[in-house]
Amino acid sequence: MMNANRPLRILGLDPGLRRTGWGVIGVAGSRITHIAHGVIAPDEKAAFSDRLLTLFEGVCAVIEQHAPDEAAVEETFVNTNAQSTLKLGHARAASMIAPARAGLIVAEYSAPVVKKAVVGTGAADKAQVAFMIARLLPTAGSPTADAADALAVAIAHAHARTARRVA
Amino acid sequence: MMNANRPLRILGLDPGLRRTGWGVIGVAGSRITHIAHGVIAPDEKAAFSDRLLTLFEGVCAVIEQHAPDEAAVEETFVNTNAQSTLKLGHARAASMIAPARAGLIVAEYSAPVVKKAVVGTGAADKAQVAFMIARLLPTAGSPTADAADALAVAIAHAHARTARRVA
Repeated sequence: MMNANRPLRILGLDPGLRRTGWGVIGVAGSRITHIAHGVIAPDEKAAFSDRLLTLFEGVCAVIEQHAPDEAAVEETFVNTNAQSTLKLGHARAASMIAPARAGLIVAEYSAPVVKKAVVGTGAADKAQVAFMIARLLPTAGSPTADAADALAVAIAHAHARTARRVA
Repeated sequence: MMNANRPLRILGLDPGLRRTGWGVIGVAGSRITHIAHGVIAPDEKAAFSDRLLTLFEGVCAVIEQHAPDEAAVEETFVNTNAQSTLKLGHARAASMIAPARAGLIVAEYSAPVVKKAVVGTGAADKAQVAFMIARLLPTAGSPTADAADALAVAIAHAHARTARRVA
């Protein structure tokens, strides 16, 4: 699976209908490096099916360009607003089908697990996550909140993989 | 767009994570004919992302085989159970991205509109829908409830198209 000369690449995804954040990191042992990140933002005036298609094709393009080995996505917070929950479900599927189609495993992590992996506590806020992403991945610059969350999910997956290997 | 020698083909979809029903009808003027129908049922023991992939690829295969010109999907009933709503959102996206990717418009109709188009009343039950599908599409045989609902969505779209053209 993994080329010994190339760090394992993990694609993290923070799905949303308006903005889906993505981030790719490299993992070699305990060393984590930033590879790329970005945000996919479909035209809000487009038809609903076309917005989903833009998310799906955007994630497919990221996978083609950065060739990740595994993917991870944040588990969805079930909103009290059923319509919001439903929309997020659609956006999340668009994010998940793309890596599954490329043959990648798609791991899922709850928000507290992601925060704990990056900040050290499951109760961290968005600003703390962004601060730690900037420290852990100094070459990432200042990613937007959506991209920072996506990089955080990728880091959470890197930690979980290591924990599984050690255990 | 439409070949004069070939009726317009409409793909109807009734999305569900366990079973996604599909049906293809032909429309020439006021004449509606049955072309094909079926159900896509992913392995319930597979990873969530793989179940979504099976739905997506299943709908892609139906489109490749039956070459519909337009697609229609039932609007989702927002469940009181947020987890069910979220799962249905994922399944519905898998159904919508496939036709959008093939360049088809994806129309959406509420359940009462679909029932009214097929049975004549928005308050019809599943048995009434299945009965009317068997009458309207005699060559369809006895489709399962999921496939009958998918054929009903396709018929609702055929009616809505005609209404738009007349108006």
